[in-house]
Amino acid sequence: MARLKTVSEGVCAARGFRADAIRAGIKKRGLDIALIVSDAPAACAAVATTNLFCAAPIVVNREHLRGSNRVRAVFVNSGNANACTGDLGLRDARKSAELVAHQLGCKPSEVLVASTGVIGVPLPMDKVAAGVREVCAQVAGSSSSERAVEAIMTTDTRPKTSAVQLTINRKSVTLGGMAKGAGMISPNMATMLGFLTTDADVPKSVLQRMLRQVVKRTFNRVTIDSDTSTNDTVILMANGASGVKIPSLECAEGSALLQALEQVCSELAAQIALDGEGATKLVRVICQGARNEKDAERAARTVADSPLVKTAVFGNDANWGRIVAALGRSGARFDPSKVSVFLGPVQVVKAGCRAKYREQDATRAISEKEVVIKMVLAQGSAVCEIKTCDLSYDYIKINAAYRT
Amino acid sequence: MARLKTVSEGVCAARGFRADAIRAGIKKRGLDIALIVSDAPAACAAVATTNLFCAAPIVVNREHLRGSNRVRAVFVNSGNANACTGDLGLRDARKSAELVAHQLGCKPSEVLVASTGVIGVPLPMDKVAAGVREVCAQVAGSSSSERAVEAIMTTDTRPKTSAVQLTINRKSVTLGGMAKGAGMISPNMATMLGFLTTDADVPKSVLQRMLRQVVKRTFNRVTIDSDTSTNDTVILMANGASGVKIPSLECAEGSALLQALEQVCSELAAQIALDGEGATKLVRVICQGARNEKDAERAARTVADSPLVKTAVFGNDANWGRIVAALGRSGARFDPSKVSVFLGPVQVVKAGCRAKYREQDATRAISEKEVVIKMVLAQGSAVCEIKTCDLSYDYIKINAAYRT
Repeated sequence: MARLKTVSEGVCAARGFRADAIRAGIKKRGLDIALIVSDAPAACAAVATTNLFCAAPIVVNREHLRGSNRVRAVFVNSGNANACTGDLGLRDARKSAELVAHQLGCKPSEVLVASTGVIGVPLPMDKVAAGVREVCAQVAGSSSSERAVEAIMTTDTRPKTSAVQLTINRKSVTLGGMAKGAGMISPNMATMLGFLTTDADVPKSVLQRMLRQVVKRTFNRVTIDSDTSTNDTVILMANGASGVKIPSLECAEGSALLQALEQVCSELAAQIALDGEGATKLVRVICQGARNEKDAERAARTVADSPLVKTAVFGNDANWGRIVAALGRSGARFDPSKVSVFLGPVQVVKAGCRAKYREQDATRAISEKEVVIKMVLAQGSAVCEIKTCDLSYDYIKINAAYRT
Repeated sequence: MARLKTVSEGVCAARGFRADAIRAGIKKRGLDIALIVSDAPAACAAVATTNLFCAAPIVVNREHLRGSNRVRAVFVNSGNANACTGDLGLRDARKSAELVAHQLGCKPSEVLVASTGVIGVPLPMDKVAAGVREVCAQVAGSSSSERAVEAIMTTDTRPKTSAVQLTINRKSVTLGGMAKGAGMISPNMATMLGFLTTDADVPKSVLQRMLRQVVKRTFNRVTIDSDTSTNDTVILMANGASGVKIPSLECAEGSALLQALEQVCSELAAQIALDGEGATKLVRVICQGARNEKDAERAARTVADSPLVKTAVFGNDANWGRIVAALGRSGARFDPSKVSVFLGPVQVVKAGCRAKYREQDATRAISEKEVVIKMVLAQGSAVCEIKTCDLSYDYIKINAAYRT
């Protein structure tokens, strides 16, 4: 295992990356345009939403990544999703990339774009055009990961950044990033955006496999309100500024960088889960002993998405009936009479029935700031963990008092 | 089409059925044991939860319906679900039926049982035994559909009953029923119980097909919080007291009775949807033009379950972006550029983009007491409608003001 050191500066932590932000007036208030620039052309990988109504930036990024092996910049706006905007939306997204490319002196296909905000409203291109000029001028002379992350926030209450440093072949490599992901019932469809940078030197195909693997195990295992945005996007750029080559995913170097990527993405994912609107706790739902990975994920995800379970967690009510009821309808195959359930260290269900435990111990376990719900199916060896938050106050008021 | 006349008396409306209720002290307050009795042995059909953790009463009813062609009574308690109670729970459920059978002078397999309430706690059998004696004595001399429906309520705020009369072969036939189904995030897992009675004379196999068809189109198309209870049960009894024979599902008589059953179940389902905790509106989500029934249901159900859509309905915010985003992740196959969406009479999406409409018209449509969301996929001819409620006040407070 590589030793990872946490560092600051998020998406600007890796050598050769700068980022900054300005206010263009697209959102009602605050910074709303961010630009991430790599001094040298960078290899780039991306994963995006599976929603059939995918937004224009996602279509355009696919075109650009097909047309170009290298990327110089990522241009992001908040306040407008440029989704369900038809051909006009596509033209606007392409135009945004062209404007940035013109300023940076690169090809339009070397610029990726991302948007988050209201659906169905055309981008205000006059503001975008002025914003591009301003942000490009600014990023030439300064860099601020704080401003950049602020500009991608919508209903987020906290900026989400993470970065680590590690040594590969006696050279220092840095990988960092920033993300946004809004609350429990985000007005912006809980759009998840993630931007990651590293100064390792990684071939595009390796980078893409790496990102896909890690996103599956991190961002895709956070659930706030089970809605999937039209704009969800994660982009990873690698510019090689460290001089450290990562020839494949399977070698020692590849596995070290993968570990760094997983740590940064896990950290960002946990920050997203904790930032659910009104969330007071991080909830880790773990399914063990499932027949296969699919069943493990079904079970963990169904419990993590259950409003009933989440209200019980908020109310500090060790009401495991809600957990087994969600588990039972999850579609995972198991024998109910073999199931165990744990709240933290306390076993509350044994062989499908109430275990012997003291109510106060179970109450203490569910009252923790980080609550762990573990279900053991005893069918096989597959495991899955899903992170979520509780459903808090206003939503809960009428329900948390149940059984008290 | 048969002419259906709405009548009162719910589950007691059909000839030869009586029902009453008493307080046994299982719930904290109010009536908590109900008994429905058919004077003559009745044919009986039942459908129950698909949850793997099905409660003891469901297992016992399956045994009884296999062992007996006729049923005399249904015994219901609220306040305790008798779920996740293992072998003890099965013995308790069987014992309850035996106690009732003893009082009524019939076989235990002619008594069905149903429970709703807390999971994982054994039934208080001393209270149940005393309750059985009391309710059997009472129902011998009186009958009250009001008391019966009150006794099956948990977090329900309103009793749910419906009954219709129709003429088949110049004789009057009655079909009625009562249901319980709790709120948005019901502590009792939103357990749905439904009890239906008719004085038509229907073979068990026909009755079962009839019930299965209708439940699929009515109760199974209500969604409150997407949780499926361990105890969901719908029971239909037919005692033949009207003297009207229904030989099959396909004949004129069968189709008339089916229509009556569908009307009563639709009515009860709508009452359940409207009784979501804090619900202020009934929401009908309709998908038309889907490739097949499965896609139609996926699309309608995903939109109906979306917290984002439901908060928009409560907030009178015609935010159709949330509808298309839910539709796009539903798993239904379609071409986004062919999709239309209507709020009441107002077309808000045309060819996948914003249609031309006045915001005030869309706002008016979503401000109605009964909101209709219609999505037309233009892929085929399959249709599905799902009923739900909005997500109201306390839950919404932080979200409804979006875009205003």
